[in-house]
Amino acid sequence: MYVCKSADKRLESYIAGKEVETSFNRVDHQKIKCGFGQQGVCCRLCANGPCRITPKSPKGVCGATADTIVARNFLRAVASGAACYLHVVENTARNLKAVGERKGKIKGEKVLHDLALLFGIDSEDVYEKAIKVAEKVLQDLYKARSEKMELVEKMAYKPRLEKWKALNILPGGAKSEVFDAIVKTSTNLSSDPVDMLLHSLNLGISTGLYGLTLTNLLNDVMLGEPVIRKASVGLKVIDENYINIMITGHQHSVIAHLQDRLTDEDMKKTAEEAGGKGFRLVGCTCVGQDLQLRGEHYQEVFSGHAGNNFTSETVISTGAIDLIVSEFNCTLPGIEPIANEFMVDMICLDDVAKKSNAEHIPFTMDRDEEISEYIIEKALNSYKNRRSKVVLDIPKDHGHDDVITGVSEKSLKEFLGNTWKPLLDLIAEGKIKGVAAVVGCSNLTALGHDVFTVELTKELIKRDIIVLSAGCSSGGLENVGLMSPKAAAFAGDNLRVVCEALGIPPVLNFGPCLAIGRLEIVATELAEALNIDIPQLPLVLSAPQWLEEQALADGAFGLALGLPLHLAIPPFITGSKLVTEVLTEKLPELTGGRLILEDEPAKAAEVLEEIILDRRKGLGLI
Amino acid sequence: MYVCKSADKRLESYIAGKEVETSFNRVDHQKIKCGFGQQGVCCRLCANGPCRITPKSPKGVCGATADTIVARNFLRAVASGAACYLHVVENTARNLKAVGERKGKIKGEKVLHDLALLFGIDSEDVYEKAIKVAEKVLQDLYKARSEKMELVEKMAYKPRLEKWKALNILPGGAKSEVFDAIVKTSTNLSSDPVDMLLHSLNLGISTGLYGLTLTNLLNDVMLGEPVIRKASVGLKVIDENYINIMITGHQHSVIAHLQDRLTDEDMKKTAEEAGGKGFRLVGCTCVGQDLQLRGEHYQEVFSGHAGNNFTSETVISTGAIDLIVSEFNCTLPGIEPIANEFMVDMICLDDVAKKSNAEHIPFTMDRDEEISEYIIEKALNSYKNRRSKVVLDIPKDHGHDDVITGVSEKSLKEFLGNTWKPLLDLIAEGKIKGVAAVVGCSNLTALGHDVFTVELTKELIKRDIIVLSAGCSSGGLENVGLMSPKAAAFAGDNLRVVCEALGIPPVLNFGPCLAIGRLEIVATELAEALNIDIPQLPLVLSAPQWLEEQALADGAFGLALGLPLHLAIPPFITGSKLVTEVLTEKLPELTGGRLILEDEPAKAAEVLEEIILDRRKGLGLI
Repeated sequence: MYVCKSADKRLESYIAGKEVETSFNRVDHQKIKCGFGQQGVCCRLCANGPCRITPKSPKGVCGATADTIVARNFLRAVASGAACYLHVVENTARNLKAVGERKGKIKGEKVLHDLALLFGIDSEDVYEKAIKVAEKVLQDLYKARSEKMELVEKMAYKPRLEKWKALNILPGGAKSEVFDAIVKTSTNLSSDPVDMLLHSLNLGISTGLYGLTLTNLLNDVMLGEPVIRKASVGLKVIDENYINIMITGHQHSVIAHLQDRLTDEDMKKTAEEAGGKGFRLVGCTCVGQDLQLRGEHYQEVFSGHAGNNFTSETVISTGAIDLIVSEFNCTLPGIEPIANEFMVDMICLDDVAKKSNAEHIPFTMDRDEEISEYIIEKALNSYKNRRSKVVLDIPKDHGHDDVITGVSEKSLKEFLGNTWKPLLDLIAEGKIKGVAAVVGCSNLTALGHDVFTVELTKELIKRDIIVLSAGCSSGGLENVGLMSPKAAAFAGDNLRVVCEALGIPPVLNFGPCLAIGRLEIVATELAEALNIDIPQLPLVLSAPQWLEEQALADGAFGLALGLPLHLAIPPFITGSKLVTEVLTEKLPELTGGRLILEDEPAKAAEVLEEIILDRRKGLGLI
Repeated sequence: MYVCKSADKRLESYIAGKEVETSFNRVDHQKIKCGFGQQGVCCRLCANGPCRITPKSPKGVCGATADTIVARNFLRAVASGAACYLHVVENTARNLKAVGERKGKIKGEKVLHDLALLFGIDSEDVYEKAIKVAEKVLQDLYKARSEKMELVEKMAYKPRLEKWKALNILPGGAKSEVFDAIVKTSTNLSSDPVDMLLHSLNLGISTGLYGLTLTNLLNDVMLGEPVIRKASVGLKVIDENYINIMITGHQHSVIAHLQDRLTDEDMKKTAEEAGGKGFRLVGCTCVGQDLQLRGEHYQEVFSGHAGNNFTSETVISTGAIDLIVSEFNCTLPGIEPIANEFMVDMICLDDVAKKSNAEHIPFTMDRDEEISEYIIEKALNSYKNRRSKVVLDIPKDHGHDDVITGVSEKSLKEFLGNTWKPLLDLIAEGKIKGVAAVVGCSNLTALGHDVFTVELTKELIKRDIIVLSAGCSSGGLENVGLMSPKAAAFAGDNLRVVCEALGIPPVLNFGPCLAIGRLEIVATELAEALNIDIPQLPLVLSAPQWLEEQALADGAFGLALGLPLHLAIPPFITGSKLVTEVLTEKLPELTGGRLILEDEPAKAAEVLEEIILDRRKGLGLI
């Protein structure tokens, strides 16, 4: 069977040795791509279609041009991606509100205090504060489109805020902005590509400030703040002696109760009676990254991060997973037949992520105890039932034990002595040339699984550019060892010395894709420290192996922030000269951001390095 | 140049005689359709794709099956269509609220009173009543998904309500239901086709009760109720002696002020000074149908309904349109170059419908006077500037002068003596075999422009089935004369006698697609009168030439109501056996509804007649 190439050679060989069909095998069957779809010039909005733009048919039946069709498809994708993240922040805020109402566990009181202060909430009571913070977020999300969101003004970096006001892209109620973007991209509605691209930036802002940043912070309140620590990653983290629950998704607060409950003394006994040493959560996809990020608080129950989205099928085929609990994407449909084959039950906690063969238990905070008991019971029964019937095959040589995790905008600053000065000094001195955020998904088409991400990262650190990562990209980077201190050896001489002196890897792990919001806080704070605007920073963004619509919404935030954004695969826009030109050439005049399309890692690194050098020059640095 | 066939022969020959490129010409360039798109088995959600399902590649890279891909595409389309209608009802409610707040014109006080009563609003003051009614609607739209909408319980037919509760498809906050449907259909989220089809029905309910029904009723409050009357239709309604403003869209209340203002005495003088007899609104698409429906109240200013969506390009190419005012779809992008060629400026009043070459003036009720003045000034200047430079060519032989319009759930009942008994008696006696609602869009692919709609309608009336129409379908049917009393000649002997006795045509014109909501009130009231559930009625639904996603949302309401729904072109679902089976075979057990796919008019009429005969039998009628 064909197996897609991976940057993770051990993973690739493991998959090749198994007779389990995974995405790695299916890539080959889908290798012939539709050129119309790739270029974004296929329109399926109406029964006169599908229409496809060619030189001989430059318009759809209705008269839509390639520019209109591409812009419509693009905006709809960005809106859908924004919707996903906003769904996550809405649930997170609801969960925080419920925690406040029942006076539940608040593990990040400092974050809560800071948010309350920022939001102008005056209260002494921690629970009341939690409720009010959550309400502020929910109120904004539910505003009409005609009413601007209150917290944007409070959270955004001032020079950006002014820029966004000038461009008229300050978002009204985030859910309504998504809603109207969907309307706008419907049949015979908007035909204006520029308006649709500006709407994409507007959605980027609510994605970034709410979907990403606020989700992180509200989770920090409920689940505790990230603490830098060493951790194990890869398939080796799966311990067959435990009853293993694989978790996938993006909504950490949804499993907050479960992870606490599993540490209770009686749980160990329950597991032991069934023959296991205890219960363990096996991290997968972004919620796994979130657990890893806050792993300091859950050392006992969290076995570690096994792998990113496209590793999830393999995690199940080790045979040692007893139950899958999923609350969002990126839960591949491909896991369904594998779960069946390995007799693993699936529970979905949010109907938007309902897998066809899964049981749906709608999660609400007021039912969390009951749901945890149900999940535990399911896992226990599954363990008892299946372990004698399935073959276990855990590649214990896959992964690393010295990955530095728990990096956040705060833990990193704290590490530097509660100031960004050491980092800024290293940049000023040229020991660190600049910063690249290599983020987003993992896909199987940009040279293979994590191949582009890893190659680009290597090229960047070789050039003394420090890399920060968040998303499935970090799952790939940690599994190939680039987030271990020993990876300093791959860095250029200057960066290597810095890493060795500090005992850090040249690639820092911020965790889930949600943490792209944390990276953007770092960018903002660096700009603030230098009293410049974000587009002046020697800081670049790449989502080389973007996969999903969510990545495009993240990317739109990057572009709104004024960052250069590199993608290895074009976001289905190349069929429109206008859309491509606006994003790749005109945007610098608008937000300062710029889309860079480059499908060769070394060349991409070169372009990004050039931008960094140019920015350094702008700041008077050599 | 190739010209698409039309049921409207005069229109077809007119287009053929002109050297203006329209949709009728472009059909030929887009005649080779992508089979994957048509079957719904193309997925463009992620950068591993586009993926296409074939027998050799039965899954996408991620593992998504044809069932998952088709259901996702379908739900996203329904959600987008629902979003469009919900956008319209939201704006309509906001406009009513503004009218109440400023104590503006309330032309339908009776409707307002009925709504207030239904909603449980206790107030003597008409303006306060208007505000509270509008607020109730807005509150429901903005509820979270976890909170059921209050007005569904008040508006829905009780047996249906119970059915919907049992199926768990009662909608929560309508905007959030759309929002989460978009989330659900994103990459690696839901893979459950059945859940997604049920979500489509849920969206159908909010589309039907809010997007359609409430939009009509709130408009009736502001703009006056429909009154049955005779009217002229077709291109002949365009009078070159007037300054002509073509209106397109779906939001009648947005042009409420303009249509009143244009009747002021000074307006006539202004026009006369420029050489015109006055100002006229030329009806096009659904908002034109809405003006026609309420034409009794605007006889002076409304020139009549010229044609449906695909006639709009031709309307401009008569040369006699001086300004285009558009506030929603179905405003084809194809009108843009024609407007340029004929020197016609375009103003868009809602950014969701921004045309690339149009000026965008965002409408809000508090600016209506100012906006009307601006539009009038624009039209005046355009008239003065362009009339000497363009060739006028109005086919005065296109259309009819005796179309019966103004039919609504109320005006029809009133016509029957304020009771449905005469209609029910005619049905019981077999003089009218049953009722068929032939509704929805016009497209160019189901045999040609309005060809299927007209042929099916002729087949149905020949079988003594009375036809009710709403949407662009009614634009087509009226322009070919089927809504004139003389069309009785095409009806079967029984129906013909009824029509002749009452002086009505066998095809009744309910107006815009929004009025599908009125038809569904008729269905509900007939069921209520007979004390049966809707699926027992000898009543069928067909949207033969559905075009847009909105039509699919309408259709989902029909299916939720338990109606058989015929479409000539499958809604991109045939690539999934499961989805097709659920909609065409399993649905009768769920809601009582059923999707019927039949691309031959006579056969479709046969199937629909059989259903009607079967329902008659069920009611003990011969």
